[in-house]
Amino acid sequence: MPQFLSTSDVDFEARFQAVLGAKREDSPDVDAVVAEIIADVRSRGDDALIDLTAKFDRLELTAETLRFSGAEIDAYCSQVSEADRAALQLAADRIRAYHERQMPEDAFWEDAAGASLGWRWTPVSAAGLYVPGGIATYPSSVLMNAVPAKVAGVGRLAMVVPTPDGAVNPLVLMAARIAGVDEIYRVGGAQAVAALAYGTGTIAPVDKITGPGNAFVAAAKRRVFGKVGIDMIAGPSEILVIADRDNDPDWIALDLLSQAEHDESAQSILITDDAAFGQAVAEAVDVRLQTLERRAVAGPSWRDYGAIITVRDMEEAVALSDRIAPEHLEICTADADAVTARITHAGAIFIGGWTPEAIGDYVGGPNHVLPTARSARFSSGLSVMDFLKRTTLARMTPEALRAIGPAAERLAISESLEAHGLSVRARLDQLNRD
Amino acid sequence: MPQFLSTSDVDFEARFQAVLGAKREDSPDVDAVVAEIIADVRSRGDDALIDLTAKFDRLELTAETLRFSGAEIDAYCSQVSEADRAALQLAADRIRAYHERQMPEDAFWEDAAGASLGWRWTPVSAAGLYVPGGIATYPSSVLMNAVPAKVAGVGRLAMVVPTPDGAVNPLVLMAARIAGVDEIYRVGGAQAVAALAYGTGTIAPVDKITGPGNAFVAAAKRRVFGKVGIDMIAGPSEILVIADRDNDPDWIALDLLSQAEHDESAQSILITDDAAFGQAVAEAVDVRLQTLERRAVAGPSWRDYGAIITVRDMEEAVALSDRIAPEHLEICTADADAVTARITHAGAIFIGGWTPEAIGDYVGGPNHVLPTARSARFSSGLSVMDFLKRTTLARMTPEALRAIGPAAERLAISESLEAHGLSVRARLDQLNRD
Repeated sequence: MPQFLSTSDVDFEARFQAVLGAKREDSPDVDAVVAEIIADVRSRGDDALIDLTAKFDRLELTAETLRFSGAEIDAYCSQVSEADRAALQLAADRIRAYHERQMPEDAFWEDAAGASLGWRWTPVSAAGLYVPGGIATYPSSVLMNAVPAKVAGVGRLAMVVPTPDGAVNPLVLMAARIAGVDEIYRVGGAQAVAALAYGTGTIAPVDKITGPGNAFVAAAKRRVFGKVGIDMIAGPSEILVIADRDNDPDWIALDLLSQAEHDESAQSILITDDAAFGQAVAEAVDVRLQTLERRAVAGPSWRDYGAIITVRDMEEAVALSDRIAPEHLEICTADADAVTARITHAGAIFIGGWTPEAIGDYVGGPNHVLPTARSARFSSGLSVMDFLKRTTLARMTPEALRAIGPAAERLAISESLEAHGLSVRARLDQLNRD
Repeated sequence: MPQFLSTSDVDFEARFQAVLGAKREDSPDVDAVVAEIIADVRSRGDDALIDLTAKFDRLELTAETLRFSGAEIDAYCSQVSEADRAALQLAADRIRAYHERQMPEDAFWEDAAGASLGWRWTPVSAAGLYVPGGIATYPSSVLMNAVPAKVAGVGRLAMVVPTPDGAVNPLVLMAARIAGVDEIYRVGGAQAVAALAYGTGTIAPVDKITGPGNAFVAAAKRRVFGKVGIDMIAGPSEILVIADRDNDPDWIALDLLSQAEHDESAQSILITDDAAFGQAVAEAVDVRLQTLERRAVAGPSWRDYGAIITVRDMEEAVALSDRIAPEHLEICTADADAVTARITHAGAIFIGGWTPEAIGDYVGGPNHVLPTARSARFSSGLSVMDFLKRTTLARMTPEALRAIGPAAERLAISESLEAHGLSVRARLDQLNRD
């Protein structure tokens, strides 16, 4: 049974805080192991990768077979059905079209003082994409990471994916091919992250690493951060649905379950202004849980972290939603656009009853890599910006320096940075002599 | 003596690697101490802040005096000379004008499938700004952090600044007032970061913390990351100057020294296509070092990490510069615009001999918080984007769902996520019944 809360309850605030603060993440302390693995890869390179892959993935590799050959990729891709290939292509095309609109513009202008100012965006030269193997192997995540990188103009995109016991998901390779991934290596875990960050004989180092992974991968990403850039460290998935009574309870139940089935630590919350509708959704969830393939995952998630919150009106719903700052927010109300306009903190909003969150996981176009654990208060989902960096530009004329240089000199002196001031003064003196 | 290198030397590559890889950062391991301090502030709030401030800053505070009152700020600001105030105001105005141009635009459009897609930018609700006290107290850093936050629309901007033995820099308070900082607290160190992240009786928690600090502050920022957002952890400052013979060696020497005087670990590098010019700059540095106020800092920096690299042509200079990926890059060559256009990795570029880097530290307009330690390969300087986050938007019509829903269902099934598929299928079935 999920939690049932109502803003009319006297103990609402305490219970809401408990739902908000529920410690859902189980982070085993793997940092010491990960530090050893990284040191091993840094010192022994490919040999370390080969040994660690034999140990963890029970797979014997050589420096020659670390990388998937073009012929191997061809062979795996030929196993993909035409329907699956077409679905991946449609998803990739839509993700590409959306992310192309995110490309920021360069700027360079001259201001009233005669200073030319601006900035220029350039892509990261080389990026690495971590793709989990084993049970949670998602071709959609390959598209969501690789397509923005390629739209940004990343020249070299290297992907790592473990193949435990040699098991390969052909859809993952197909997605990589469609997205334009340049190199694919059959390694995973902390050792793959280390290889991408520091390089080995076979794998050239990259500048930025993105993609989801288990606790070892997350710890490795934290450790190599600084040497390379990383994306966010994602926590368990979350959905908040705000729905009024004019919805099919079964649709809403399925939307809630589509997060719950990801992970026993996932959290699904419904906010409604109709207690009876909330009850109907809870019943619909129970019916679906009887037959759902992943009921062993979705059941515990819904039982332990699910919540149905009854509010007096949509004003309350918006206020609670902003406190939750959900990763995914579905707004199924009569005035969905108006409610959307009042939301401040959310990773992604799915507007209206015809927009199940699952559309956004695959084919909507926006990215499905989104901020979890209330971090939508201060961060954003993956985008082309994660694969670009900005160089600021400034060019002074003698006139511009004459106009603003004295203020710079003054501030430098006030900060006791004499050379800063002198570097301006030497030039101003020259101007005064000219 | 700095290192002298030439790309014509047989051992150039090894020596260049040594310059690139010089371990300049001295990071004492303060993590255990910082963990204790954070735990103390979380459990005891203001009382912990008061005790830790008495211990580290030798200053007795109460819950009432933790925050600077408006009258106190008035009194300190009245000590600032009109010339200093005007210089700060000019700097703030120029920084604001530059950063206003960075504001990204919202978007919402309908695509061929009938799906409405887009995104919306919203500011972080509350931000915290760390300002160091003691010797390195820089009003310019207050402007560089606070102005972009306010341009982004941050509603509440709280600043913390330690005042060891009660010492207050009036210019720091003046800069805060000019930039629109809302609250100023006289606390510092890891305890101030903890207070901003978790809140105390007096200091309400924020969502994002920016600003430079010592090893304790950096370790605290790393620890609270996730609970709140943080900016980059900056390393020692760096400058690379690319200059041909048509420059005054003294100007270039001063530009190199304006980084060296920041920190004994700062790094200043000159690349020139004229060995004699390089020698002349080295001599000019030596002359300036005889009298420079901060020669005890700049001298060791230049001696230990400085380098003068002679190249055959500007093509080589550009290639080396991109390998260095400097925080600050000054281009003082005849064809400075053309050289600038060929650079890929740099935090900020200062174009032409009339643009000393110090202009960018104060009044140019672009931010002076920039990526160090080669991280310009994958990251950017501080900007309004650091105080904004993006919510993606998607709204399907029944027709749009009919067009793209089947592909989503197909991919969900291929990933064994049944509820994802059913959430789309339930709606498609309804459409087929309609």
